[in-house]
Amino acid sequence: MKKIDICLTPELLHLYELTDRIVVVVDILRATSCMTTALAHGVEKIIPVATLEECRALQAQGYISAAERDAKKADGFELDNSPFSYMQEHLKGKTIAMTTTNGTLAITRSREAIQVIIGSFLNKTAVVEYLRSQPHDVLILCAGWKGRVNLEDTLFAGAVVDELKDEFLIEDDATLGAHTIYGCAKYNMLKSMASSSHVKRLHRLNLARDIEFCIREDEYQVIPILQGNALVAMVKA
Amino acid sequence: MKKIDICLTPELLHLYELTDRIVVVVDILRATSCMTTALAHGVEKIIPVATLEECRALQAQGYISAAERDAKKADGFELDNSPFSYMQEHLKGKTIAMTTTNGTLAITRSREAIQVIIGSFLNKTAVVEYLRSQPHDVLILCAGWKGRVNLEDTLFAGAVVDELKDEFLIEDDATLGAHTIYGCAKYNMLKSMASSSHVKRLHRLNLARDIEFCIREDEYQVIPILQGNALVAMVKA
Repeated sequence: MKKIDICLTPELLHLYELTDRIVVVVDILRATSCMTTALAHGVEKIIPVATLEECRALQAQGYISAAERDAKKADGFELDNSPFSYMQEHLKGKTIAMTTTNGTLAITRSREAIQVIIGSFLNKTAVVEYLRSQPHDVLILCAGWKGRVNLEDTLFAGAVVDELKDEFLIEDDATLGAHTIYGCAKYNMLKSMASSSHVKRLHRLNLARDIEFCIREDEYQVIPILQGNALVAMVKA
Repeated sequence: MKKIDICLTPELLHLYELTDRIVVVVDILRATSCMTTALAHGVEKIIPVATLEECRALQAQGYISAAERDAKKADGFELDNSPFSYMQEHLKGKTIAMTTTNGTLAITRSREAIQVIIGSFLNKTAVVEYLRSQPHDVLILCAGWKGRVNLEDTLFAGAVVDELKDEFLIEDDATLGAHTIYGCAKYNMLKSMASSSHVKRLHRLNLARDIEFCIREDEYQVIPILQGNALVAMVKA
């Protein structure tokens, strides 16, 4: 039986074996929701980088740049971390260099996995069906917030486990816990998330519209997958 | 308002400020349950050490020694990690050097806190009342299992937060999550814990009796507190 684990923050990633696993990187508010939205709207590639310096270097090479720190757009870059920013016509076919506080770091730390894909509520069912169809063990990696656990990533991870629990082996207590939390939250996700530290942070920045969008399920079918140094839309067999 | 946070594993401890906090170390199965039991039954001091070597050195100095690795007694030491081993008459007034897989390491990592105390279901109410009476912020540090989160420590931490939630500020999502999990589990703790990885591990070693004992609430009033290098029973004002 295939295994599924949840790693609650990148700070715990060294405790999990990545070889031969598919890693699903999750940063619901908002990096992986943006990535899903961008590729669904025709962006060709996203190059996730860990630092502002790397992002600036790619900008200098002519890439469109997106940079977020502490939930705000970093100075000197073109795009922020709102999914609505990635729906623009002029981005179609383009490559975007992106760095975010938590999400892109989680991706760059996962490179030794057999595959790195991007999960969000926006493409949840596509991700679930893909994991179901593959022969590999799965690790859902929550990006968290500056090393700490966050509620919205944990909820999404619990939601995926809820779909796959009869087909995958669950051995880790973090996975059981996330699944329990999802079970309590699922009937009213917005209300359940209202107490989350990051939701409060975003509300202070008037980003309620982003939050509501990021918890919509199955807006898109696209699965971003890491190929070389860039995320592209997976081409399904 | 005082703050309360839960650190789900010692691997995340560097993300929390310890200065001016009381740290409650929790390793329900079984280190902190043993420590509580030992002091309640008249053991005078417990010296927690991180390594087998340190424990052996203290044994050579004449201390009674207790050592557990992977849920079993380590070779060459007197006591294992069952609470029933700490109820013996001949231990009264003695000092025990103790090392366990997770619990003692969590204690040794917490030394910069203003106070380090020991929590378990066995002394839950005593711990809750003590925290309520003090002016300090609180961090509940779950010992986990080899760096990973475990269910039983998370449940206890959630139970303490449940008692204190109206008097303390909760800012961290891990704390919200643990409280949610406790809310789901509290009406049948033994059943809720049955799927925990460590409960399964102990069942394989025929330690069901230990598990049942370790989730009993308020068997004892004693609070072990770290003074210098040793845990002693707190003398209440």
